[in-house]
Amino acid sequence: MTATLKPIRWCADNTLELLDQRWLPSRHETLRITTAEEAAEAITSMVVRGAPAIGITAAYGVVLASHQASGDDWPAVVNASIDRLAASRPTAINLFWALERMRAIVSAHSQHETPPFAALLEAARAIQRQDLADCMAMGEYGADLLAREAPKAVMTHCNTGALATGGHGTALGVIRSAWARGLITRVHANETRPWLQGARLTAWELAQEHIPVTLAVDSSASLLMASGDIGWLIVGADRITANGDVANKIGTLALAVQARYFGVKVMVVAPTSTFDLSLASGTDIPIETRGARELTHQGERAVAPDDIDIFNPVFDVTPAELVDVIVCERGVIERPDRAAIAQLLAAEIPRAPAMP
Amino acid sequence: MTATLKPIRWCADNTLELLDQRWLPSRHETLRITTAEEAAEAITSMVVRGAPAIGITAAYGVVLASHQASGDDWPAVVNASIDRLAASRPTAINLFWALERMRAIVSAHSQHETPPFAALLEAARAIQRQDLADCMAMGEYGADLLAREAPKAVMTHCNTGALATGGHGTALGVIRSAWARGLITRVHANETRPWLQGARLTAWELAQEHIPVTLAVDSSASLLMASGDIGWLIVGADRITANGDVANKIGTLALAVQARYFGVKVMVVAPTSTFDLSLASGTDIPIETRGARELTHQGERAVAPDDIDIFNPVFDVTPAELVDVIVCERGVIERPDRAAIAQLLAAEIPRAPAMP
Repeated sequence: MTATLKPIRWCADNTLELLDQRWLPSRHETLRITTAEEAAEAITSMVVRGAPAIGITAAYGVVLASHQASGDDWPAVVNASIDRLAASRPTAINLFWALERMRAIVSAHSQHETPPFAALLEAARAIQRQDLADCMAMGEYGADLLAREAPKAVMTHCNTGALATGGHGTALGVIRSAWARGLITRVHANETRPWLQGARLTAWELAQEHIPVTLAVDSSASLLMASGDIGWLIVGADRITANGDVANKIGTLALAVQARYFGVKVMVVAPTSTFDLSLASGTDIPIETRGARELTHQGERAVAPDDIDIFNPVFDVTPAELVDVIVCERGVIERPDRAAIAQLLAAEIPRAPAMP
Repeated sequence: MTATLKPIRWCADNTLELLDQRWLPSRHETLRITTAEEAAEAITSMVVRGAPAIGITAAYGVVLASHQASGDDWPAVVNASIDRLAASRPTAINLFWALERMRAIVSAHSQHETPPFAALLEAARAIQRQDLADCMAMGEYGADLLAREAPKAVMTHCNTGALATGGHGTALGVIRSAWARGLITRVHANETRPWLQGARLTAWELAQEHIPVTLAVDSSASLLMASGDIGWLIVGADRITANGDVANKIGTLALAVQARYFGVKVMVVAPTSTFDLSLASGTDIPIETRGARELTHQGERAVAPDDIDIFNPVFDVTPAELVDVIVCERGVIERPDRAAIAQLLAAEIPRAPAMP
């Protein structure tokens, strides 16, 4: 990611600037977000997407709410905005994680006369900074795993890069770090229907850094894996349950099944904010479904009849048994299960934002 | 398929009318084909697609060549057109099967002063008629297999219906026949990137007959199969080798791997003209790759950067071990292997067109 490209930028005039990811790479447009409601709408409409980036955006949304709230009832107003932001998308847990951090700051200041704007802004900035730091750490941990074997190609799905995070990326961060260390030969990016994050965002990010990337339709993964050229499938996560089940972009389960069949290893890369230990297994994760138009139209052109049923799930759940390793900023969990996850997460290290 | 919709129609003025499948379902346009060269271009550009339909179209292309050839060298002229038609697409064996039938008629008449137009036209018509009869027979054989169990949903990929054949369809023919007999509850049609045959053609064919169909992205197959609602994956084939390996639309291998993992049975439906006993296994099948634009653009809009590599294979090969049953017009091959295939095909029944 070039330094000039900032998908989420807090501006000096106390507004939030978002790169509109719906039109990349053909159009580079930014949206100026001035209210929590606009931030929520930007998340729902996928102006910004990617689990960590959604969390960061929601945190700034709370900052916007605090900037505008006044009067004695400011805690109720800001908490209502937090509730609104929490309803923007259902699956990525990072959203709720970030909002709970912000809500705790609101609670701690609820007896004050005015909202804790400065504290909330610093908390949002800390979440963004910490996510970048986490991605850099995950990149090295993941690259260390690749270093065990001779360099091969890797496959990734959706976009987990700088556009989806505070920078560098989760799965794509591992790929960046591994490429820098000479540990991979090529990236196979699946186009990732229906939203084409792989074509529009991942291929674009990699091309900017001159990392060799081949784009193919999602359904050619088996043909590629059967060739023997691909060593790892490397993906992100939107939520990981206590037993290691992984909710991620629709198609991840299919890819993990294929990877197992063809002897390709599966690496999930996600910060600890992605874990939801309150859920025993992936069957409990709410899976978002989106509207029909993402499948029935290309722009204005209809590519399907209008009198049929459409199933447009955004995520699926890969069982832990199909995951070889989970990489988070604290280290690596090989053959993830309840015990291994509990062990890594038990060593709770205070993380930004620090509680006031 | 309604009786009014004819994807391939020979006209009284000795031209060929093709329904242009590139724009369905949003536009219903037909192309008038007057030369073998135009027929070859229509196959290459996918005005018409589907292995049996390609064979039928190529046969009529030879008829067009014979209609225009004159002079002593007519056999050379017509054979050159056959060669041109054979170069239109590489993977579907039905194309070469149909052209060899036509070439045999040319050879048998090569001492005549004029081309055997009437014999060639009757041969092309017979191929088209026979394909419809074969599809009807396969439909019943396939439905008989479904009748062994309680009705469930089925999944299909690409388009194997009336648009892809002489009528009724191969895999979609089984689905039609099974639906008519109350043996299936619903059809899950994968959209089938990049050409969206499932969205544009299969969903459209099924909707016309009021067969309940749900459209989803290719990569959601595992999510659907994991639900337990799907009993069979039912697909067509572009070429089947002596050992039972199946070349079919890109994504079929991925689906077969997923079907095996989730306990969904795999049925391949294809007429015997799809078998290529000259090839020992699927590794010998030439796999067509098409241009980058099918992935990089939606209409005029770029959906990928222009400085990356694109891999756009049209087919993949599913090993026989992942196929539960092959249905052809002569019957059913369960757990296909070399011996079972040889046994069914050895009972060679004279098929249209009869050799003169």
